[in-house]
Amino acid sequence: MQAPKSPTEETPVDARRPRVDSVERALAQVGDAWTFLILREAFFGERRFDAFQKNLGAAPTIITDRLKKLVAYGILERRAYSERPPRFEYRLTDKGMDLYPAIVMMMQWGNRWLAGGAGPPLELVHRTCGSRSEPKVVCDACGGEVAARDMDWRPGPGA
Amino acid sequence: MQAPKSPTEETPVDARRPRVDSVERALAQVGDAWTFLILREAFFGERRFDAFQKNLGAAPTIITDRLKKLVAYGILERRAYSERPPRFEYRLTDKGMDLYPAIVMMMQWGNRWLAGGAGPPLELVHRTCGSRSEPKVVCDACGGEVAARDMDWRPGPGA
Repeated sequence: MQAPKSPTEETPVDARRPRVDSVERALAQVGDAWTFLILREAFFGERRFDAFQKNLGAAPTIITDRLKKLVAYGILERRAYSERPPRFEYRLTDKGMDLYPAIVMMMQWGNRWLAGGAGPPLELVHRTCGSRSEPKVVCDACGGEVAARDMDWRPGPGA
Repeated sequence: MQAPKSPTEETPVDARRPRVDSVERALAQVGDAWTFLILREAFFGERRFDAFQKNLGAAPTIITDRLKKLVAYGILERRAYSERPPRFEYRLTDKGMDLYPAIVMMMQWGNRWLAGGAGPPLELVHRTCGSRSEPKVVCDACGGEVAARDMDWRPGPGA
């Protein structure tokens, strides 16, 4: 174990750290449980207000508010599917589809730590290879699995 | 494009879907922006209340509340590092460390979609191989990169 710092010692912010990082920016757009659950519904193929509302059991005002934000952020696209009466559906944009890796890793974590003895509520199948899949995060350079302890960081161009 | 459903058509929940999935369970524990940001601080090596508070600029009551929950969920461990005066620090447990893949994929998404022209605020280095790393999610069976469109699901044992 590392020697504890003295209690009076300052705990300064690492000066190399950027003031705002991408995690913080991401959370400003999707760091809300209802938002995340609407996205989960969208990844399950849901597109309609009433489906979001029914599946999540949330108040309509909550769904309306989150959908409006997701459209404003360009994560969902609002598209008319009927003119009379006017009806809209919400579809994931490319930016929205690209949230899948983060959501699927959250699901994997839930499977490992929160599923209890019963096992995971759902299993994933990778269509490309046909196997049951447990997605994992790897380094794009070496292909090795990535864990917190293996990673270091440095300021990027946008720091 | 798929033919749109008629506006009067019911949008039933897919009957195969489990009532509660791991994403929902995960969000019940970490689906809050402050919680997520405290975890980000912990992955940056911060352990002290005052560091969380200062780095996030949050009200102390917010930090106290989120730390208490994270300890109750077994994601952080509260540990005395001084007896007189009594002082505590907060360290990631194994369950907490295992959130890294989800958080790093959120960061990657932020890098791709929210960094603007300036580029990512920080870059990751994979210590194991020494390269700059852009972690990605792959199928553990075939090693192929996983995108939303390639994945199907079926009820698991805990459905």
